[in-house]
Amino acid sequence: MTIQLISENKVAGGLHQQFEFDSVALKSTTRFAIFLPPQAIQGQSVPVIYWLSGLTCSDENFMQKAGAFKTAAKLGLCIVAPDTSPRGENIPDDTEKSYDFGVGAGFYVNATQKPWATHYHMYDFIVDELPNVIENHFNVTAQRALAGHSMGGHGAMMIGLRNPDCYSSISAFSPICQPSQCPWGIKAFSGYLGADPKEWRAYDSTELIKAIDSNQFVPMLVDQGDKDNFLAEQLTPEPFIDVATQRDYPLTFRMQEGYDHSYYFISSFIDDHLHFHHQHF
Amino acid sequence: MTIQLISENKVAGGLHQQFEFDSVALKSTTRFAIFLPPQAIQGQSVPVIYWLSGLTCSDENFMQKAGAFKTAAKLGLCIVAPDTSPRGENIPDDTEKSYDFGVGAGFYVNATQKPWATHYHMYDFIVDELPNVIENHFNVTAQRALAGHSMGGHGAMMIGLRNPDCYSSISAFSPICQPSQCPWGIKAFSGYLGADPKEWRAYDSTELIKAIDSNQFVPMLVDQGDKDNFLAEQLTPEPFIDVATQRDYPLTFRMQEGYDHSYYFISSFIDDHLHFHHQHF
Repeated sequence: MTIQLISENKVAGGLHQQFEFDSVALKSTTRFAIFLPPQAIQGQSVPVIYWLSGLTCSDENFMQKAGAFKTAAKLGLCIVAPDTSPRGENIPDDTEKSYDFGVGAGFYVNATQKPWATHYHMYDFIVDELPNVIENHFNVTAQRALAGHSMGGHGAMMIGLRNPDCYSSISAFSPICQPSQCPWGIKAFSGYLGADPKEWRAYDSTELIKAIDSNQFVPMLVDQGDKDNFLAEQLTPEPFIDVATQRDYPLTFRMQEGYDHSYYFISSFIDDHLHFHHQHF
Repeated sequence: MTIQLISENKVAGGLHQQFEFDSVALKSTTRFAIFLPPQAIQGQSVPVIYWLSGLTCSDENFMQKAGAFKTAAKLGLCIVAPDTSPRGENIPDDTEKSYDFGVGAGFYVNATQKPWATHYHMYDFIVDELPNVIENHFNVTAQRALAGHSMGGHGAMMIGLRNPDCYSSISAFSPICQPSQCPWGIKAFSGYLGADPKEWRAYDSTELIKAIDSNQFVPMLVDQGDKDNFLAEQLTPEPFIDVATQRDYPLTFRMQEGYDHSYYFISSFIDDHLHFHHQHF
C-alpha cells in the first residue's frame, strides 16, 4: 500500500497534507486530508480524530473552514478527513446528479444494491481501511475518536455505536439522528440498501442506541443549532435523545441558540469537541 | 443609501452578515461581508478592521477561511471584507479572463484608462465610500485599521500610507510590496493607469514609504511565509523593508519559516494581527 502526497501546507506549527491512494474497499482512488500537529512532526505519536463530512463535501471543507488547527496543535491531536463517497470517472453517480445521493453522499454505508454495491463501501472504508492506512503511515497511536457534521454526524454516531471498542469518544454537529425516518436518509438507504427498512436499522443511530450494551457506552457530545433549517425535517434529534436519556447513555446534547447548519457554527464550537476527545483519549 | 441583507450566520457569539448596495464609486451593485462581535450586538460601539483580499477573492474567502472570529469576538473588533473589484454583468472584464486582471483583481486603484475608468474605482470605494456606509449603518466607532493579503496586502499598505490620519494601524500577509516592479503589478497598472510608470507611483508602497512625513508613520505589521511561491517574483519585500529600516518606520516584518501563500498561513497568525490592531485603537 503506497499513498501519494498531493499537497502540503504548514499551518499552526503543524502540517496540513492531502494524500491519495487506491482503496480496496472503494475499488477506486480516494483522497484524504490529514492535520499533523507539531508533536507528531517532532516524533511523538499522537491520537487521531476522524472527521466525517456532510453532503456535497470532500476532504477539504473541514480543513479550510473549521478553524480547528490552533487547538489541535496545542493538544497534540491528529485530524483525518476522508472524502464523503467514492469519486472519479468510473464511479456511478445519481443520474439526476442530486446533492443528496451518489457522489458526495455515501452516507457511510456498505451499499448492497446495483449499481452502488461495487464501490460504495464507505462503512468498511472508515471502520477498517482508512485507520489502517493512517496507523501504518503516520506518527499516530491506535487511539481513535470520531466526529462529523450532518450526514457525517450520522456517520460518526452510527460507526461509533457499532464499534465501541475502536473509539474512545464520539462527537457530532447537527447530525442526522434517525436516517430511516427522514427524507435524506430514506432516499439514500432505499438506493444503497434496498426497499426493506429492516436492512436500514444497522445504520440508524436511534435504532442502534436502543440495543447497545451499557458496558459499551462511548462518551458522546452533540452540538445542534436551533436556527438550523434542516433541524425539524432531516435531523430529528428528539427520539435519539429520548432513548439516550432512558438508557442513561453518556450523551451531552447542546442546543445552541441562534446557530445554523454552516461551518460558521462548527468553527464556533470545534474547540470544545477537540477538548472533549482529548480528555477521553 | 440603503443596504440589503443577503445572508446571516451566528458565529463565535457574534454575527457574520453579507450585504449589497449600489456603490457610487463603482457605479454598480457591490457586496461586502461584516463580522459584528457580541459587544456590537449588545449595543457597544466597536472599532473596525477593513480586510482587503487578494486576487480572485470576493468578500467570502476571509470570512470562511481565516478563523478570525473567536479572537475578534473576545477583543470586540468588527471586521469588514469588501469585494476585490466591481463585479456584475455590466462590468468590463479582461477579455482573456485572466485571474490577475479585471474582475477579482481591482488592485485598489482608481482606473484612468478605458474601459476600466468607469467602474474600477476601488481606491475611492475603500478610502471613502465603504467606511461611510459602515459607520452610518452599524454600531461602530470611527476608529479604522487596515489589513489584507497579497494584492490586498498591497492595498492595505498603500491606502494606509496615503491616508495616515484615517487608520490607527496597518497589517498585511504576503503583500505585493513593489507593484510597479513585479509582473502582476505591471500588468494591472499598465491596464488601469496607462503605460507611464510615473502614474503608478501613487499606488506603490515602496515609493510611498520613501516620501511619507515621519510625523505620520502608522504602525505596521507584515507576515510573510518563506515557502511562498510568489515571494521572489511578485511580492519582493526587500526594497520596502530597506526603506522602512532607513527611515526608522515602525514596521515589524516577520519572515515565517515554512509557510506558504494560502489561508492556512493567514489562519496561523491572524490572531497576532487582531491583537496588533486592538492594541493601537
